[in-house]
Amino acid sequence: MVKEFMGADFLLENEPAVKMFEAADKMPIFDWHCHLSPKEIYENKEPEDIAQLWLGGDHYKWRAMRSCGVEEKYITGTETTGYEKFKAFASCMPSLIGNPMYHWCHLELRRYFGIEDILSADTADEIWNKANEVIKAGGFTPRALIEKSNVSHLCTTDDPADTLEYHQLIAKDATFKCKVLPAFRPDKALAIEAPAFVPWLADMEKTACTSIDSFAKLKEVLLIRINFFAQMGCRASDHAFSYLPYEPATPAELETIFAKGKAGEAISAHEADQYKTALLQFLAAQYAERGWGMELHIGPMRNNNTKMFEAIGPDGGFDSLDDQMIAQKMSRFLDSLAREDKLPRTILFTLNPKDNYVLGTMLGNFQGPEAESKIQFGSAWWFNDNIDGMREQMKALGNLGALGKFVGMVTDSRSFLSYPRHEYFRRIMCNLLGEFVEKGQYPYDEKTLCKMAEDIAYNNAIKYFGVE
Amino acid sequence: MVKEFMGADFLLENEPAVKMFEAADKMPIFDWHCHLSPKEIYENKEPEDIAQLWLGGDHYKWRAMRSCGVEEKYITGTETTGYEKFKAFASCMPSLIGNPMYHWCHLELRRYFGIEDILSADTADEIWNKANEVIKAGGFTPRALIEKSNVSHLCTTDDPADTLEYHQLIAKDATFKCKVLPAFRPDKALAIEAPAFVPWLADMEKTACTSIDSFAKLKEVLLIRINFFAQMGCRASDHAFSYLPYEPATPAELETIFAKGKAGEAISAHEADQYKTALLQFLAAQYAERGWGMELHIGPMRNNNTKMFEAIGPDGGFDSLDDQMIAQKMSRFLDSLAREDKLPRTILFTLNPKDNYVLGTMLGNFQGPEAESKIQFGSAWWFNDNIDGMREQMKALGNLGALGKFVGMVTDSRSFLSYPRHEYFRRIMCNLLGEFVEKGQYPYDEKTLCKMAEDIAYNNAIKYFGVE
Amino acid sequence: MVKEFMGADFLLENEPAVKMFEAADKMPIFDWHCHLSPKEIYENKEPEDIAQLWLGGDHYKWRAMRSCGVEEKYITGTETTGYEKFKAFASCMPSLIGNPMYHWCHLELRRYFGIEDILSADTADEIWNKANEVIKAGGFTPRALIEKSNVSHLCTTDDPADTLEYHQLIAKDATFKCKVLPAFRPDKALAIEAPAFVPWLADMEKTACTSIDSFAKLKEVLLIRINFFAQMGCRASDHAFSYLPYEPATPAELETIFAKGKAGEAISAHEADQYKTALLQFLAAQYAERGWGMELHIGPMRNNNTKMFEAIGPDGGFDSLDDQMIAQKMSRFLDSLAREDKLPRTILFTLNPKDNYVLGTMLGNFQGPEAESKIQFGSAWWFNDNIDGMREQMKALGNLGALGKFVGMVTDSRSFLSYPRHEYFRRIMCNLLGEFVEKGQYPYDEKTLCKMAEDIAYNNAIKYFGVE
Repeated sequence: MVKEFMGADFLLENEPAVKMFEAADKMPIFDWHCHLSPKEIYENKEPEDIAQLWLGGDHYKWRAMRSCGVEEKYITGTETTGYEKFKAFASCMPSLIGNPMYHWCHLELRRYFGIEDILSADTADEIWNKANEVIKAGGFTPRALIEKSNVSHLCTTDDPADTLEYHQLIAKDATFKCKVLPAFRPDKALAIEAPAFVPWLADMEKTACTSIDSFAKLKEVLLIRINFFAQMGCRASDHAFSYLPYEPATPAELETIFAKGKAGEAISAHEADQYKTALLQFLAAQYAERGWGMELHIGPMRNNNTKMFEAIGPDGGFDSLDDQMIAQKMSRFLDSLAREDKLPRTILFTLNPKDNYVLGTMLGNFQGPEAESKIQFGSAWWFNDNIDGMREQMKALGNLGALGKFVGMVTDSRSFLSYPRHEYFRRIMCNLLGEFVEKGQYPYDEKTLCKMAEDIAYNNAIKYFGVE
Repeated sequence: MVKEFMGADFLLENEPAVKMFEAADKMPIFDWHCHLSPKEIYENKEPEDIAQLWLGGDHYKWRAMRSCGVEEKYITGTETTGYEKFKAFASCMPSLIGNPMYHWCHLELRRYFGIEDILSADTADEIWNKANEVIKAGGFTPRALIEKSNVSHLCTTDDPADTLEYHQLIAKDATFKCKVLPAFRPDKALAIEAPAFVPWLADMEKTACTSIDSFAKLKEVLLIRINFFAQMGCRASDHAFSYLPYEPATPAELETIFAKGKAGEAISAHEADQYKTALLQFLAAQYAERGWGMELHIGPMRNNNTKMFEAIGPDGGFDSLDDQMIAQKMSRFLDSLAREDKLPRTILFTLNPKDNYVLGTMLGNFQGPEAESKIQFGSAWWFNDNIDGMREQMKALGNLGALGKFVGMVTDSRSFLSYPRHEYFRRIMCNLLGEFVEKGQYPYDEKTLCKMAEDIAYNNAIKYFGVE
Repeated sequence: MVKEFMGADFLLENEPAVKMFEAADKMPIFDWHCHLSPKEIYENKEPEDIAQLWLGGDHYKWRAMRSCGVEEKYITGTETTGYEKFKAFASCMPSLIGNPMYHWCHLELRRYFGIEDILSADTADEIWNKANEVIKAGGFTPRALIEKSNVSHLCTTDDPADTLEYHQLIAKDATFKCKVLPAFRPDKALAIEAPAFVPWLADMEKTACTSIDSFAKLKEVLLIRINFFAQMGCRASDHAFSYLPYEPATPAELETIFAKGKAGEAISAHEADQYKTALLQFLAAQYAERGWGMELHIGPMRNNNTKMFEAIGPDGGFDSLDDQMIAQKMSRFLDSLAREDKLPRTILFTLNPKDNYVLGTMLGNFQGPEAESKIQFGSAWWFNDNIDGMREQMKALGNLGALGKFVGMVTDSRSFLSYPRHEYFRRIMCNLLGEFVEKGQYPYDEKTLCKMAEDIAYNNAIKYFGVE
């Protein structure tokens, strides 16, 4: 029996899954990690057309187009129109069999536009016209999309130097029910070896209205920012690493490294790791004190294509996976915090699926009674944000931890149309749990199962981050 | 169709699997690697209650409880009762969907206690009472459990310095049919860099009634112990490594390293690897001569949580996976033995599933006519001892070697209730082989298939280790 | 329902797959990477018997036999007969459940010999007699097998020093319809650290009728060979690496390294990587200019068993998988070409399946409009050339790239009987794509699907390499 494409029971292959999804689907969304712009949420502009919505900044789609041999001018070029880009993208779609993009796009067409056609070169014009009519009819501003998607809370990704002015403005507007919370992302503070460090420090000094002339002072300033973020409702921090460093250093060494960094001098890999270790230890202790969740996103290898980086900058779709050994340093870093009772709630994400079992077993070394599954295995992310990746991550967590306590999905997205990824996740999650039941590996107790689906879809994250 | 939870055809999803399991299920158990205490087998005491049996020393359950946010006092604390611990554990169970623990516990309740209830906070009291009544009625001593489980042979894990006095006492008791054989585990002799080396050497000197003042002398003493173990029926050795070392050294270098080790001086990582290489080469040659199997358990990263290690010691559930590069050194080490015709029957285990194909292909480099699949790929182990892990290991072995010659399952357990893990394995194994048949990938020849299931369940290991 | 062994719908488990395979099965074969001997194709001799065809040089079968404990004399020994070897192999077959060898052998028996019996010790004699009668009846010369297998083009694997005389002779024979093209494999030119380098250089000088006394001169000579290969219809190059190196060097350094290599002096690992980086950069730029495909086969660890290497040489079945970190250097190497617009069409193969996602995401960094999926993820290869390996590779490519643009399968084989591996691949590919449809993850549009199956089976590769 061939199932209808993307029908009501899409991805639901067993009876318990259908029942569980009925429950999960009713839950609101807590999108505790995304890259939405608070400014755009505040300004709440109508989009021009589907090309702007879909192809204006989505490096997933850009990569897909490049994989099909599309010329760059139809991808990021300024000399072509949105319509031409949309046509070029549409003509790639049929080749994207087995790609989550194929599902995301068609889910978005169905959920937001009411369009059930299949996108291809043949249907591009018709869908272009239909979609743009729907957009013209309204309901496609950021806030409208967020509300239509039943998002109760979302956490943006914010630099410590950010003034959070748009968060303040959004919070003042009582008519907008979704809570837009900042999340603390001090990547630039940690990347002392990067060219962006010196300008970042200048920004930070400006925001903090003080000069930062020592590592000790930097920590002071960051502490003030953490407190400010906390006042603004922040419950999460976020960090990206190709591997989690662990290199102890003395306070004097750290001051020397900081001074070199501030002066824009070259920093060795070892020095950078020493600095990052110390600063992350300091920050983590602060997060622990405030009950924040610390998200560690591990594994990207960025900006691999120098020529394209020079042409269009970062986040253009030229990132891939690193494959370093991560276990020993991660263990030593987390232990350095646990030893002093300063380990916060921590969510470990891996971009390289070879490390699913490294992370899945690392959790168990550092759990604690402060939260259910205090150390979490973050949902399959970016290149793993697909059916296989999510199933593998959840099976690993099931085998190695307590899947029922999982804090679940985030969009990690820049797009206001990306909430169907929660639906996608929920279907996959319910299907996997339902499979266990269907196979006689877990009892068919509907109440327990529906509760678990609701928890993983929403409640666990609300409880874990302590929001509401 | 939703299957009954843990019904008669649990994990058997095709007709050939059902037939194969009927055959495999009748076979006795040869548990050729476990951590049972020969003293406890000899003393044969009645357990107090199910809390003692289940929660007294099982780090798998401890980890599961910690993952659910249970306070340590309900896990390893001395200030709480067994009943309280059992309740705390029961309340975690529903969250352990997809975890082998969920199956192991319910299999144990069914096979040993005749209890078919589902364990949760709601049923904890009833199961507590029922289980303890059954225990009180008798049949829960170590030997009774071993005999009830149809175990024909088991191999314990014994230090060379061990006198094997309990093995001797057990062997003298003709009423106990199961053969309890020692297995040679000289991990402490190899870990020259560890604090335990000096005290171990003192123990060894005591057992051997001689002083050990050189590497040459150590080898002499170990040879005497190997011969003694052989007299006691030993057919297997066992070694644990985070990676298999290979660093050649001269005899003089080895003596220098040994002298430093004996004096308790610091040993560099390179020196430790040189010493381990040479000692393992020596031992392996002895194993080869006697037709013993050499088990190499590769991949753990132990004692990651310093604070908990200090509080409750090793094997408390704070171990996880290393992720080092292992292929080149493993190849060089095994080749160094093969070149001199001193490579014993060897069973390669990996804790990191990323290395399934490294090991699965390594086998083929060093096979020999001394045994069918002389170099074996050890069964999915510890964190991989679950449905996914076992399927992946067997599929890798099937694709890369001769699955029909596989020596199969071991409990690797400290618990006298863990034999249902063989049933679990046999169901998964029969299901996988049956799947090949169901899909038309192998002929439906019942006789061949049932014979293969029996062989993997029991006969292959008996033949491989040369017991009986 | 248990399927008939290897029936008409072998490996086809859903209705769309059956339809797609009907289309794919009709396509010719373009075997763009194999190790067939052009000399043997030209000479076109009748084989003696099935032992010669099957066991004369097939290291896959040799490994399988060793895994079953067969003595070497029945594998590569000269003191035993082909009949004895065939019997020994047949007796191993039943243990090879889950091994692609089991399918390859039975497919070959069915497709070339018309024998549907199951090979085992019991049937060995009957199959031996039947098969040899069929061989005697004719149709088993290399060309007959190639034509019977509907091969339109094949690419052999040829050293730059090769005169390609047999390619010339074959090309002259208008009665043979299959195009036998050379592929440029300069592994010996790159392996400056290997003992074979000096003799290879001498061969190269002889073929080129010039002395090669500098790195610059070597490049000149190789350029001439590339042009000659191009004249002979070459469209592909091929390279094998345990990891792709990236170590920049100055021209002066390269000359010094070359001089040491030519003199047979020791070359450090760093020097070898510098030399390889520079030479591969040079070659890649040439390939790019000519629109050739550059195949990079990454991951083998060869000749692990010294004793057997000394006894029977390379390619005897003693190779396995390396497990190095490959991402960073691969990124830097490919970027060094992309930066200068000198990156050719490139096909990345991995032998270690842990790197499926590293490669699958690397593609996207370097795509370009010169070809659809200019950077390809090569089909599951060697130890991964099995149902699981092919599914994993195609699922990774589907998730991360554009599966519809995949250039598909190659035999990579030394055997004229190996073409059913294309059938095997096509069945697995159609089954996977059909699964997406069956599950409602892709629309059931028969025309699009059959076209895609035909493209992956044949058309994409024809277009990608620009042959015909």
